[in-house]
Amino acid sequence: MRQVAILGVGQTKIDEQWEKSLREIGGEAAFLALQDAGVDKVDALFVGNMLSPLVDGQNQLGTYFADWIGLWNQEAVKIEAACGSGAAAFRAGLMAVASGELDSALIVGVEKMTDKAGHDVTAALATAADADYEVEQGVSFVGLNALIMRRYMHEFGWQHADFAPFSINAHANAIGNPFARLHDRITVDQFEKSAMIATPINLLDASPIGDGAAAAVIVPAEKVAAIPGRSRVLVAGSSSATDTIAVHSRKDPLFLSAAYESAKKAYAMAGVNPEDINVFELHDAFSIMSALSLEACGFAERGQGVRLGLDNAISLKGRIPICTRGGLKARGHPVGATGMYQIVEVTQQLRHECGATQVVGARIGMAQNIGGSGATILTHVLKVE
Amino acid sequence: MRQVAILGVGQTKIDEQWEKSLREIGGEAAFLALQDAGVDKVDALFVGNMLSPLVDGQNQLGTYFADWIGLWNQEAVKIEAACGSGAAAFRAGLMAVASGELDSALIVGVEKMTDKAGHDVTAALATAADADYEVEQGVSFVGLNALIMRRYMHEFGWQHADFAPFSINAHANAIGNPFARLHDRITVDQFEKSAMIATPINLLDASPIGDGAAAAVIVPAEKVAAIPGRSRVLVAGSSSATDTIAVHSRKDPLFLSAAYESAKKAYAMAGVNPEDINVFELHDAFSIMSALSLEACGFAERGQGVRLGLDNAISLKGRIPICTRGGLKARGHPVGATGMYQIVEVTQQLRHECGATQVVGARIGMAQNIGGSGATILTHVLKVE
Repeated sequence: MRQVAILGVGQTKIDEQWEKSLREIGGEAAFLALQDAGVDKVDALFVGNMLSPLVDGQNQLGTYFADWIGLWNQEAVKIEAACGSGAAAFRAGLMAVASGELDSALIVGVEKMTDKAGHDVTAALATAADADYEVEQGVSFVGLNALIMRRYMHEFGWQHADFAPFSINAHANAIGNPFARLHDRITVDQFEKSAMIATPINLLDASPIGDGAAAAVIVPAEKVAAIPGRSRVLVAGSSSATDTIAVHSRKDPLFLSAAYESAKKAYAMAGVNPEDINVFELHDAFSIMSALSLEACGFAERGQGVRLGLDNAISLKGRIPICTRGGLKARGHPVGATGMYQIVEVTQQLRHECGATQVVGARIGMAQNIGGSGATILTHVLKVE
Repeated sequence: MRQVAILGVGQTKIDEQWEKSLREIGGEAAFLALQDAGVDKVDALFVGNMLSPLVDGQNQLGTYFADWIGLWNQEAVKIEAACGSGAAAFRAGLMAVASGELDSALIVGVEKMTDKAGHDVTAALATAADADYEVEQGVSFVGLNALIMRRYMHEFGWQHADFAPFSINAHANAIGNPFARLHDRITVDQFEKSAMIATPINLLDASPIGDGAAAAVIVPAEKVAAIPGRSRVLVAGSSSATDTIAVHSRKDPLFLSAAYESAKKAYAMAGVNPEDINVFELHDAFSIMSALSLEACGFAERGQGVRLGLDNAISLKGRIPICTRGGLKARGHPVGATGMYQIVEVTQQLRHECGATQVVGARIGMAQNIGGSGATILTHVLKVE
């Protein structure tokens, strides 16, 4: 495989963007990434999206966006892996450029999901779970995560308040990120008293949905020199792994085996170990997922991921800074776009463009995107030269 | 890029398979392809599907099928490009194997769409068109093709009956294909008298929907010797191109520019010309699309694709045999699966396994899969060594 570099990135603010269409949201991120890369043309477009057929009545998003942004005649395709769609699209683009078939690719993760509020979106999100054996029983996606969190608390003896640092850290970091949906600090007291959604998951354990798009332009590293004054970010490791789609089919529902497998391969490909990672954008759709990801990726022992929050190891100056731009919890979770927000954020950290939320001296970063309740997990390791 | 070979193929009969779930249909084709390839494991799974979120309430089909067929921990992803999803999944798998990242991949195109009859499926298929500027006006997918066909007849002076040979040829060939949905010969008289759907498209201009799946196992050619007694099929050319998503945005709605572009690149990559193609599985979702594909791919002048049917050039012994296993018209069109049926059929022609519908001496074949009304077009050229 050819070495691939990230030449440009772009993102929109995550919000309820009722005044903008799906086209406009994805197009905005695409144009910003092309502008940042200093190019006006790419060989192909890869779009990550989960919900547009259900929520926007639109399929074929690859061509839809290629048309909108003027990439006529170029290759375009959509990739879907539930909430892991963004990173899955990035990996598909990566393979096509690494193979030598393409000399550049634009990847856009996009989701517009707030125009249909409430039940419709909850039902649409449940299509990530097993329709026959989970959803048919009436469980929602939050409900599945609640079952996992409850079991984790029981097995390892944690209290609900022990998860507070994950949400508090994410909210604190989002204040420094203009693209984040939420910009308010929260306390342990607020965390404990927020509205219950599916016991033990309450409102402040859960990430908010939103409309948004994030994008990147990738090129073969050998063909493009670094832009003067800017560190060049290389895709050093990339891997995707799966678990059973239904949570009940797993031998151990408290271990994200697909996170373990994909991280292991991505570390090996990049020639790094967990202790080399300076910044980690993980998939905190629910606070329990932060703990499980940290454990599966080698940052904590089984059942001890929560301790990293309590020990302040996850903050910007901690041992393993996570959710440095707000994470899913406070940046927001436009599901099919999230994986690309993570790639964009790690890129910005490695370029040292994050202002108040900059991890000082960051040189190696990791992004981990999860589809379903741990069913599809993609891990990317980025490095500056 | 590494040269890639097709090691095994499999397919289910296309039908109203109410007694089988989505899982079972895709799984059946996957197992048949693995069995045909003589392997029980692959590095990754690529699934092509368009409608499962809308019609089956299931997303994340990559992991869903990886789980069902026992590829736990392996990479899996779903690709969607409307009715071009099958070939788009094939091309994504091809890039990943060609890049050196994977040493094998299983690609499955699958669709289960007949359990929800009538309006639901028509509305779901319309998500391939432009939701804002086409579907919002009330036009269906058949309606868009009807407008194109009517304009073609007007511009080039053809009568409706002149399209009959496309449907007659497809029906005749399907009789020799046990996997085809329809097994009845039709006449010009039947063609002319069949029920009108959207003037001038009648029932026998249109392909029937269906439930079905088709699959292939691909590997680097350098790593796998030919299976004794069987020609080894190589993926010699692969390309994908797009046009505007809305038909009204095109300078010339009667020219499939994405077919022209993708065929041109696939020919160049394979080092062949149109006259070298021995068998061509094209995307005859409607009879007008056969004419337009033949023209864009260099088999006929503009407006003269219909003449190839009238001159009997499209039959098994003609200059450019098309729809040799029934085409979309008589094999059936399980939309996200169709591109993989085409790949499987060309493979079987090049292996000389097609019995009564064998194109004698076939050594080079082409498959062309279309998403939307010509919006996303993928062309693959296969060769035997």
